[in-house]
Amino acid sequence: MINFLKSALTEVNPFITTTNVMKWLKVRNEAIKVKVTKIPFSELDAWSFDKERGVLQHNSGKFFTIEGINVKTNWGNINEWEQPIINQPEIGYLGIITKEINGVLYFLLQAKVEPGNVNNVQLSPTLQATKSNYTQVHKGNKPRYLEYFVNAKSSQVLLDQLQSEQGGRFLRKRNRNIIIKVDEEIEEHEDFLWLTLGQIKTLIQYDNLVNMDTRTVIAGIPFDGTSKENLIQDDYQKGMLLSANKNVNSKYTFDEIIRWITLLKCQFEINLKPVSLFKTNNWEVTDTEIRNKNNKYFKVIAAKVEISNREVTTWSQPLVEPITEGIIAFVVKKINGIYHFLVQAKLECGNFDIIEMAPTVQCITDSYSDSSDLPFLNYVLNAKKETIRFDTLQSEEGGRFYREQNRSIIIEAEDDFSIDVPKNYTWITLHQLNFFLKFNNYLNIQARSLISAINFI
Amino acid sequence: MINFLKSALTEVNPFITTTNVMKWLKVRNEAIKVKVTKIPFSELDAWSFDKERGVLQHNSGKFFTIEGINVKTNWGNINEWEQPIINQPEIGYLGIITKEINGVLYFLLQAKVEPGNVNNVQLSPTLQATKSNYTQVHKGNKPRYLEYFVNAKSSQVLLDQLQSEQGGRFLRKRNRNIIIKVDEEIEEHEDFLWLTLGQIKTLIQYDNLVNMDTRTVIAGIPFDGTSKENLIQDDYQKGMLLSANKNVNSKYTFDEIIRWITLLKCQFEINLKPVSLFKTNNWEVTDTEIRNKNNKYFKVIAAKVEISNREVTTWSQPLVEPITEGIIAFVVKKINGIYHFLVQAKLECGNFDIIEMAPTVQCITDSYSDSSDLPFLNYVLNAKKETIRFDTLQSEEGGRFYREQNRSIIIEAEDDFSIDVPKNYTWITLHQLNFFLKFNNYLNIQARSLISAINFI
Repeated sequence: MINFLKSALTEVNPFITTTNVMKWLKVRNEAIKVKVTKIPFSELDAWSFDKERGVLQHNSGKFFTIEGINVKTNWGNINEWEQPIINQPEIGYLGIITKEINGVLYFLLQAKVEPGNVNNVQLSPTLQATKSNYTQVHKGNKPRYLEYFVNAKSSQVLLDQLQSEQGGRFLRKRNRNIIIKVDEEIEEHEDFLWLTLGQIKTLIQYDNLVNMDTRTVIAGIPFDGTSKENLIQDDYQKGMLLSANKNVNSKYTFDEIIRWITLLKCQFEINLKPVSLFKTNNWEVTDTEIRNKNNKYFKVIAAKVEISNREVTTWSQPLVEPITEGIIAFVVKKINGIYHFLVQAKLECGNFDIIEMAPTVQCITDSYSDSSDLPFLNYVLNAKKETIRFDTLQSEEGGRFYREQNRSIIIEAEDDFSIDVPKNYTWITLHQLNFFLKFNNYLNIQARSLISAINFI
Repeated sequence: MINFLKSALTEVNPFITTTNVMKWLKVRNEAIKVKVTKIPFSELDAWSFDKERGVLQHNSGKFFTIEGINVKTNWGNINEWEQPIINQPEIGYLGIITKEINGVLYFLLQAKVEPGNVNNVQLSPTLQATKSNYTQVHKGNKPRYLEYFVNAKSSQVLLDQLQSEQGGRFLRKRNRNIIIKVDEEIEEHEDFLWLTLGQIKTLIQYDNLVNMDTRTVIAGIPFDGTSKENLIQDDYQKGMLLSANKNVNSKYTFDEIIRWITLLKCQFEINLKPVSLFKTNNWEVTDTEIRNKNNKYFKVIAAKVEISNREVTTWSQPLVEPITEGIIAFVVKKINGIYHFLVQAKLECGNFDIIEMAPTVQCITDSYSDSSDLPFLNYVLNAKKETIRFDTLQSEEGGRFYREQNRSIIIEAEDDFSIDVPKNYTWITLHQLNFFLKFNNYLNIQARSLISAINFI
């Protein structure tokens, strides 16, 4: 039985202190040369528009495409719209190698640059590879440590889940989130280091240090069945660990939550039809951008990328650039003494299965609703300082998104916050969220990102 | 807390004995006039071929279409084929009303005729309605008892799950399987009657009395947490109830089974492309049939239907007619004293999410593999009589399939049956199967049909 909690409660690391990780990231940032230049689409190497289909694609047919879609739905106020979307119909690896050293589990993370990163280097999983990467379509070097995942025995696999990416940006994209445990010595490399789960969660308390891929993988780690709250000083953290315990009383049973989701999945429909990017309503393709005519949401740009420590050191690719920053926020509240998360059932156009559970507030730039009357948004924006438990900027995946960061917030609701909520919201304990997380496509990536930030140190 | 088990253990019904249900079905069979006539496609009323797209469709654009698809996959021996498939992109209701009478839960079933039924009348859920039915596209009468489901309060809903239909025949089709409980008196009708769960499960022990829709709904009923094995005489039934208990030791943990499925979903891909029915490789469209040129699998026919007790009493529609009968079989075996089911991970072209858990053997007529070397098929076909725990003919849904029945078998493996199985098979307790059943698209309809047959009387 692997003791994830022990690692989450461990801050002392004989290899490197958390402070030194931050310094080390700074050093790595300086050591790695990065240059991202916006270029016209016509200067993209091996990428071009298929004029007939109206799709931006790689000449190999691999990697991903940017396509136009028409969306029709009976959800929300806007029942039809068109937009570009990223289509990458293959399952990538997001994998972390762990090793038990003196009874504590250490996670091998990588200081990795992605072209779209705000601050160049972020802590990434050991392995972060699209199928194109690991089948070596781009003829670069084989991703480091890939063989440990490919050859892992069933007994070495601690977690193996299919998880979704942003439903507003990706068409039904999923990644394999996997954690394996090795016993043997493995070769070291200057870009990689061993951290406890506690250190990773501490680092998530800072802006943009831990990348989205690391956050989604560790979000899947459950702490159910543990009852070590007394080891923790802080009341909020103590309460969170208690909420992760499978034996506490939740407001709703597991079956009641399934019924809530089933009902919404039956009531709401989403229908997608491909449209040419050149005919996508309200969008236009210029020499350098695929942009919304009202300058909203996001744009697709072309970039020339030069990075010194990647498998391929120079290339060009399309990136998605947000127009404005977004907010994702969970409101949590003690109900019968146990923390519950106010979860929203949210339909997004690229969802694999209509609806996923999302944070209380999620109005990132790809939201097509006018957010002024969004439930709970004002509550979150006007929250009293002493109720804010987490408030940082966290990056989206820099391999696809250009300098996109979202304000990520967890707020403890005040006593007078009503537990009566609109019908597409419900209250769920951390244990229940963790349990749904085991299954495909129940929690969206924004919800998982916030869950990864819950720490106990 | 609803006591499903008590209803499953109750055979005595003050309203009607099980023997009389069988007699009653016979009477209903005679009272209802049914005439199904095969006709040319050109005589279908309001159905026609869209010559350009190569699709057979209703003129309203509602109900369902028959379409051609090209399938490419890296699963199995045949990596590309084309076939017709039913496309019905809407979620239908399969709903049962229950009522507690003297402490026992009774289920309101309907003697319903579907045009494709082998024996005309079968026991169907209280409500069995496509979206076209309940939004009254066909301008018939509103389905009986619909309002109870539409108006059900959350506290009345005992079960509400999205479940798949046949992945070899339907394109990602799902139904809402729902059980509600009413307290008030509800109007009676000659086609409906109240049965205990025990009676329904007894009736499933006979050929073609309980329709597929009833079987899939009751398959979702869990018996976890109960430990009333001592009330049961029969060792096999006692063992099955024990296997449904959440506290027994299973060979694999829940997380291990999720990892097993994730791995397979990542390894195997399926890509579908629409093709015109007129250009579907190996298939031809004649005046009266869409048929496989080698006379395999199934054919699509046109039928004129006259039924006296339906919302609409006469209509015409396409139906899918099988060429040969199929077999679905679970092998079960005691491992560490607890019954485990030998489950197969199976990829079918219409699956919503690549792979679903299927019975040990499933070689119905839409299987595109040569079944002679199918694992465990010979074991099932040559099973010793004393190891056969269930062996009946069960019908597919008569609203789409013309006289299709499959041999449905549960076999208790002999002691020398190896627990080492190929990598796309695993051993799962009844509790674990019931738990996966709560989530969307984990157990296929064939597996659910066999699970519904497990009875304790």
